[in-house]
Amino acid sequence: MSTGFFDGLSKVTYEGADSDNPLAFRHYNPDEVVMGKRMEEHLRFAVAYWHSFAWEGGDPFGGLTFERPWHPQDSMQNAKLKADVAFEMFDLLNAPYFCWHDADIRPEGADFAENLSTLEEITDYIGEKMQSSSTKLLWGTANMFSHRRWMAGASTNPDPDVFAFAAATVKGCMDATHKLGGENYVLWGGREGYETLLNTDMGQELDHMGRFLSMVVDYKHKIGFKGQILVEPKPQEPSKHQYDFDAATCIGFLRKYGLENEVKLNLEQGHAILAGHSFEHELAVAAAEGMLGSIDMNRNDYQSGWDTDQFPNNVPEVALAYYHVLKAGGFTTGGTNFDAKLRRQSIDPEDLIAGHVGGMDVCARGLKAAAAMIEDGGLEDALKERYAGWEKPEAQAMLTSDLDSIQARVLSEGINPKPRSGRQERLENYVNRFV
Amino acid sequence: MSTGFFDGLSKVTYEGADSDNPLAFRHYNPDEVVMGKRMEEHLRFAVAYWHSFAWEGGDPFGGLTFERPWHPQDSMQNAKLKADVAFEMFDLLNAPYFCWHDADIRPEGADFAENLSTLEEITDYIGEKMQSSSTKLLWGTANMFSHRRWMAGASTNPDPDVFAFAAATVKGCMDATHKLGGENYVLWGGREGYETLLNTDMGQELDHMGRFLSMVVDYKHKIGFKGQILVEPKPQEPSKHQYDFDAATCIGFLRKYGLENEVKLNLEQGHAILAGHSFEHELAVAAAEGMLGSIDMNRNDYQSGWDTDQFPNNVPEVALAYYHVLKAGGFTTGGTNFDAKLRRQSIDPEDLIAGHVGGMDVCARGLKAAAAMIEDGGLEDALKERYAGWEKPEAQAMLTSDLDSIQARVLSEGINPKPRSGRQERLENYVNRFV
Amino acid sequence: MSTGFFDGLSKVTYEGADSDNPLAFRHYNPDEVVMGKRMEEHLRFAVAYWHSFAWEGGDPFGGLTFERPWHPQDSMQNAKLKADVAFEMFDLLNAPYFCWHDADIRPEGADFAENLSTLEEITDYIGEKMQSSSTKLLWGTANMFSHRRWMAGASTNPDPDVFAFAAATVKGCMDATHKLGGENYVLWGGREGYETLLNTDMGQELDHMGRFLSMVVDYKHKIGFKGQILVEPKPQEPSKHQYDFDAATCIGFLRKYGLENEVKLNLEQGHAILAGHSFEHELAVAAAEGMLGSIDMNRNDYQSGWDTDQFPNNVPEVALAYYHVLKAGGFTTGGTNFDAKLRRQSIDPEDLIAGHVGGMDVCARGLKAAAAMIEDGGLEDALKERYAGWEKPEAQAMLTSDLDSIQARVLSEGINPKPRSGRQERLENYVNRFV
Amino acid sequence: MSTGFFDGLSKVTYEGADSDNPLAFRHYNPDEVVMGKRMEEHLRFAVAYWHSFAWEGGDPFGGLTFERPWHPQDSMQNAKLKADVAFEMFDLLNAPYFCWHDADIRPEGADFAENLSTLEEITDYIGEKMQSSSTKLLWGTANMFSHRRWMAGASTNPDPDVFAFAAATVKGCMDATHKLGGENYVLWGGREGYETLLNTDMGQELDHMGRFLSMVVDYKHKIGFKGQILVEPKPQEPSKHQYDFDAATCIGFLRKYGLENEVKLNLEQGHAILAGHSFEHELAVAAAEGMLGSIDMNRNDYQSGWDTDQFPNNVPEVALAYYHVLKAGGFTTGGTNFDAKLRRQSIDPEDLIAGHVGGMDVCARGLKAAAAMIEDGGLEDALKERYAGWEKPEAQAMLTSDLDSIQARVLSEGINPKPRSGRQERLENYVNRFV
Repeated sequence: MSTGFFDGLSKVTYEGADSDNPLAFRHYNPDEVVMGKRMEEHLRFAVAYWHSFAWEGGDPFGGLTFERPWHPQDSMQNAKLKADVAFEMFDLLNAPYFCWHDADIRPEGADFAENLSTLEEITDYIGEKMQSSSTKLLWGTANMFSHRRWMAGASTNPDPDVFAFAAATVKGCMDATHKLGGENYVLWGGREGYETLLNTDMGQELDHMGRFLSMVVDYKHKIGFKGQILVEPKPQEPSKHQYDFDAATCIGFLRKYGLENEVKLNLEQGHAILAGHSFEHELAVAAAEGMLGSIDMNRNDYQSGWDTDQFPNNVPEVALAYYHVLKAGGFTTGGTNFDAKLRRQSIDPEDLIAGHVGGMDVCARGLKAAAAMIEDGGLEDALKERYAGWEKPEAQAMLTSDLDSIQARVLSEGINPKPRSGRQERLENYVNRFV
Repeated sequence: MSTGFFDGLSKVTYEGADSDNPLAFRHYNPDEVVMGKRMEEHLRFAVAYWHSFAWEGGDPFGGLTFERPWHPQDSMQNAKLKADVAFEMFDLLNAPYFCWHDADIRPEGADFAENLSTLEEITDYIGEKMQSSSTKLLWGTANMFSHRRWMAGASTNPDPDVFAFAAATVKGCMDATHKLGGENYVLWGGREGYETLLNTDMGQELDHMGRFLSMVVDYKHKIGFKGQILVEPKPQEPSKHQYDFDAATCIGFLRKYGLENEVKLNLEQGHAILAGHSFEHELAVAAAEGMLGSIDMNRNDYQSGWDTDQFPNNVPEVALAYYHVLKAGGFTTGGTNFDAKLRRQSIDPEDLIAGHVGGMDVCARGLKAAAAMIEDGGLEDALKERYAGWEKPEAQAMLTSDLDSIQARVLSEGINPKPRSGRQERLENYVNRFV
Repeated sequence: MSTGFFDGLSKVTYEGADSDNPLAFRHYNPDEVVMGKRMEEHLRFAVAYWHSFAWEGGDPFGGLTFERPWHPQDSMQNAKLKADVAFEMFDLLNAPYFCWHDADIRPEGADFAENLSTLEEITDYIGEKMQSSSTKLLWGTANMFSHRRWMAGASTNPDPDVFAFAAATVKGCMDATHKLGGENYVLWGGREGYETLLNTDMGQELDHMGRFLSMVVDYKHKIGFKGQILVEPKPQEPSKHQYDFDAATCIGFLRKYGLENEVKLNLEQGHAILAGHSFEHELAVAAAEGMLGSIDMNRNDYQSGWDTDQFPNNVPEVALAYYHVLKAGGFTTGGTNFDAKLRRQSIDPEDLIAGHVGGMDVCARGLKAAAAMIEDGGLEDALKERYAGWEKPEAQAMLTSDLDSIQARVLSEGINPKPRSGRQERLENYVNRFV
Repeated sequence: MSTGFFDGLSKVTYEGADSDNPLAFRHYNPDEVVMGKRMEEHLRFAVAYWHSFAWEGGDPFGGLTFERPWHPQDSMQNAKLKADVAFEMFDLLNAPYFCWHDADIRPEGADFAENLSTLEEITDYIGEKMQSSSTKLLWGTANMFSHRRWMAGASTNPDPDVFAFAAATVKGCMDATHKLGGENYVLWGGREGYETLLNTDMGQELDHMGRFLSMVVDYKHKIGFKGQILVEPKPQEPSKHQYDFDAATCIGFLRKYGLENEVKLNLEQGHAILAGHSFEHELAVAAAEGMLGSIDMNRNDYQSGWDTDQFPNNVPEVALAYYHVLKAGGFTTGGTNFDAKLRRQSIDPEDLIAGHVGGMDVCARGLKAAAAMIEDGGLEDALKERYAGWEKPEAQAMLTSDLDSIQARVLSEGINPKPRSGRQERLENYVNRFV
């Protein structure tokens, strides 16, 4: 029995690039085979519960704009209605995955015991719904940033009771994720950082964060959770500074605490932009270390200094992102989570569908372009040619040599390198043949 | 015999805060004792040869504005005149240290052999001048970014011959630094990065950069150089992306290549700003890892998106920087290098003196304010109180515990933490009592 | 009868710079005469009702952190309690002024009639309180950005009914401001702009905004309101783009719609930073046009891309701001409104007092430094000297000349100008003698 | 007789989208008719002399990377060789237009007389070349920012002799532009602004700039130059602040000095980005005022805080730019000038051709997509529907009404507007059907 929320809208299907049906897929054809794999299996789309169902349209200067039947979100009854609508949307979109924070799916309770109990109840309810749905859980996570108890951090809080509350919360969320067959478990530390260094002991907080993450890894093994643990870099917002600033910072942190073989990264376009990077940069950094786990696909407005979490719409940019994903072997447990929210003026149920349809189509175009570039091989060939000198024995030998002998060789051989063109414009033109 | 360049200007002396002599120190009194040490020994000021003597006032839209007697800088004769003037300025300022790149002090030659030979000649000349001067060498470094051979990087160049040329160059610069009694050797990788990922193999380049730095460390030990090896983070400019993005990135890099006990950081205010950080953030990150080596003191215009390298002039900001330096134990081999250049309209010799006098006074005020805060202890007390909960045995026990037992304790004890004020405004007001 | 909210805190008094009482003024001495005027009359401090009493500590990633006795803010009873506490704080601080939006002081009603009626009731209540208080109203304004009806703008809304609602609202707020003796009326257009150009007719929206502002000016004259109408520039946030981007944009807008003699600017430090300007830039732009009306004093975190609205704490920056205010003749109807909020972790009543005390002291130091610079005259003298050439008759004649005759003169006289130093560092050092 | 510079490269022709010839047009087909006009006449491409022929590949941290046969650029002989190569490239690309600064085409002389004489000589030479070429002059301009005499501004210089030199220079450049049949004359004020407010009289400088521009307009009429006078906004770089900050600021300036009917804007993508705007924003602002004159097409790296002047390569962004150009009626005297330079590692002559071919193709795709959207009418229809309420008589009547009567109507009619969806995602999806 339908909730009626999406009345008038029907299942979104693939109609091809010539369709002018605004609610059809024009590029995303789940069964189309790209580089030997179905598109659906490549992209592994997930809907984010928080943006689509929990966020009410508020911003720092204004209250809710969405008026949904499941508002206010403070009762189990409304939580179940929200879940019903969510699964209706997953079905309309034929979404293979979804993702949640605990606080998205359950009402907020007065204490931990209540939060745990409502989490169990609602995940049981969701679990039942998943029985009759093809939508699976890409990952679960704990919201440890919204409630005022987290205002000074979760695992990095100066108050050890908050650390305890965080540990208890994550255990609950990992159990629920495991129960629902989640393929990953994510940690995003929006308040793991500081507002001012004046009241912060950074060394101690980082040690606590490292220890906390180790406990998470230990617990994963203890319960036999086979999913991947992921951390998600973001430089700031809500905190002035967040310890998981960007991919390189996270990787350094993981290595310091001996977690580099246990934890990978969940990378987001918008967070990359806020950190002063392109999305493909963050993907390349993670890929170079074998730590590219999953992506939060969205886009950040280039003129806004905060996290705008818009649906992706720039195909050339998205194509470069998937180029790095494919080059790194594609997703294993990870996927393409739409960490994207409607603009707060987009208040119609149809907007929810349209946002996802557009985003999925943009990703499909990006994937196909990326695959075509990989199959054509032009970029890889150019790379190989540019670095060809390093394949020579004397070049390799130099890497195990020392400064003295290299200087001697430069002097004796009169080595005086001549610049060669970096061919950037030609490579950019090449890419434009595919997007 | 004077070059006459600074004719009319005399040795800068300390006259006290009430002086209105624009070319006197009003706050920097080298012999004044602060926290048990002479100010000069705390601050360890260094003049940067490049900005003060080699830079000609050009910018991306205009040519030189300074017309100096040692222009053009393409002969040994002018290089020596430049050195003469430099030491005259060191003397006027009573500067304890200076710093150079090879390309600042020697004319550019046609090949490596010529560069090496002119470097040896000019450093001999400089060495003689140092005999009769109290100014010492804080650090030397190699300019591996200006000549067109470096356009695609030095140690990360796709052409192994450039790697070789770089290794040969650094050996030469380390030898010269050692000869002149330099207390550190610095590497700044302005072209170690990329313009576009399309033509870049990031993994390979990083491995080469790691290997190169290991060779530098090996060579230091081989020749018995007791100085500290330092790398200097900067996120971008000239390259679109530089691998040594910020302190956290550099530390992660050093740890990956096993160099974390051999190499420390030289941190610059302007580079911190370009990376989206405050200067004190970068200092705190390095200090938390025991890797705070030296500082490049300057300031970046907050409204400019490029490296403005201005003389510092904001005492409250500088005070927070020295607070972290002092808290980390103060400088050992490091110091305060003015990586600061005159505005290109400041074309008078007097401007050169004024820029340094102003900068030194601002640093002196900052140091004294920082020392007063440390001696007063207010910030440290507040920190201690804020984290006091972690000193309790049950808190410490939790850190060696696991998620299950913590959750059990949260449930059994009904742990429900109550937020406490972070007191940011009160701490900021406290700081304002000292600056 | 006290509400008890500030129990334990007493009236803040001036104790001098040596005081270590964290809740005393160390620099703000209302009766101290600076440049012939009492400090209080120079600075004209105002407390912002919204940040101090209406904002609950939420941010885009978290809910309220402040738990105040007047929460929830949806009843007239709580609105009155809030007003009681507000006046207690005004009294503790001896604040000469306060400012409000309608939505800060009254509960939100179901329709315009209810909003108007509650606004009248609460402003009557506040008016009574003002009888026994020395705190006056600096300005009132209408909140036309928080309620969902404003999501697509107020006067620039595509829906004319929203324009009507806005006009009705502003009339109500102007009446209330007039009733309470307000000295200015402010319009800030947080939603007067766009989220996407795809759905925006910019020309039409600007015309409507111009027309709306003309109506405001007409109404002011009609009711005999003697206060100044002010608009407040901000480049973005909440909207992606706001039409009142910065001072220059606002001035251009006012001139286009013939309002340049009727409307002045209320300038905010944080908004200047977000627009890519320094605060003194915005002040100088407005002053050059005679349109500097009032200031919203706060500070924006230089590493955050959103409006952080922190209390000012950097004296050198604040001194330059007041230098431009004083140079422009000082405030007439305007003042120094603390558009500054506590950090959301600063949850104690004492933090509210501390934030204001610190901010007032910083402004007092800034004002005194600015006054000292003006009295010393060093900057003005330097300016006069730099532009002295323009006082010569041939220079003045050139301004009424034409390109031909100027070229002829350049050729015949062989005019070949020689650069002179801009002396920036020397001027910065000069400023540092005063701050 | 060919210079041989482009040996091995042949005339670029249109081969269609399926071509994999890297030096063929795949989308730019000059004769293809779009919206009733040949593509060439729509786009009116121009090559920028400065980037392609005068810039040597330097950046703030490195010297020249390009080694061209016409280096060094200090003799008339080399200036003529440079012109020969330039026209060879115009021919290879079949470029309809080019643009220059005086300093790009002539060697720098010792004084104004010499500069004027060499300008006349080289423009005579260029004029002869134009006789046998189909390439015309889109615009000329004066470089009043590179030589050290301009370091403190041209028309805004504190030294009236510099103003005079600037006036003489612009007269010379206008004469030369007129002689060569230029269709516009451009002024970009890279040093018309300030480095520090401490030494700047902004009001006086703006008045001088306004007076200067009036003289330019007067002189245009005097000599019968029919071209359009254009000013070009840029917020900063080289100066810390430039008076022509953005489109809105320029328009306000023009209106203040009564020039709004005489001068239009030349808008650049990269400058828009540096000012915190999208390119289409700047175009829309100018179009709304009827002041959209011409465009400098390029792209700015979104992660770089300086002017990167890259060739455009993002079709969706370029399409939105041309959408606004077409909506405003298309170019009249203006055109698409590639104010774009090769990356400094792109040192081959082939790179010069490739950069332009790629850029022209991207613009062609953008133009065709924009035209398709206009012909389809979807965006315009959506706009019309969204603002339909304003066409009603009562809405129009309100605009000539007043606050009192509107409030009365809101109360009597109980006006309580209901939000409608802004449909942003649906509109973005719509655009993606065309790009």
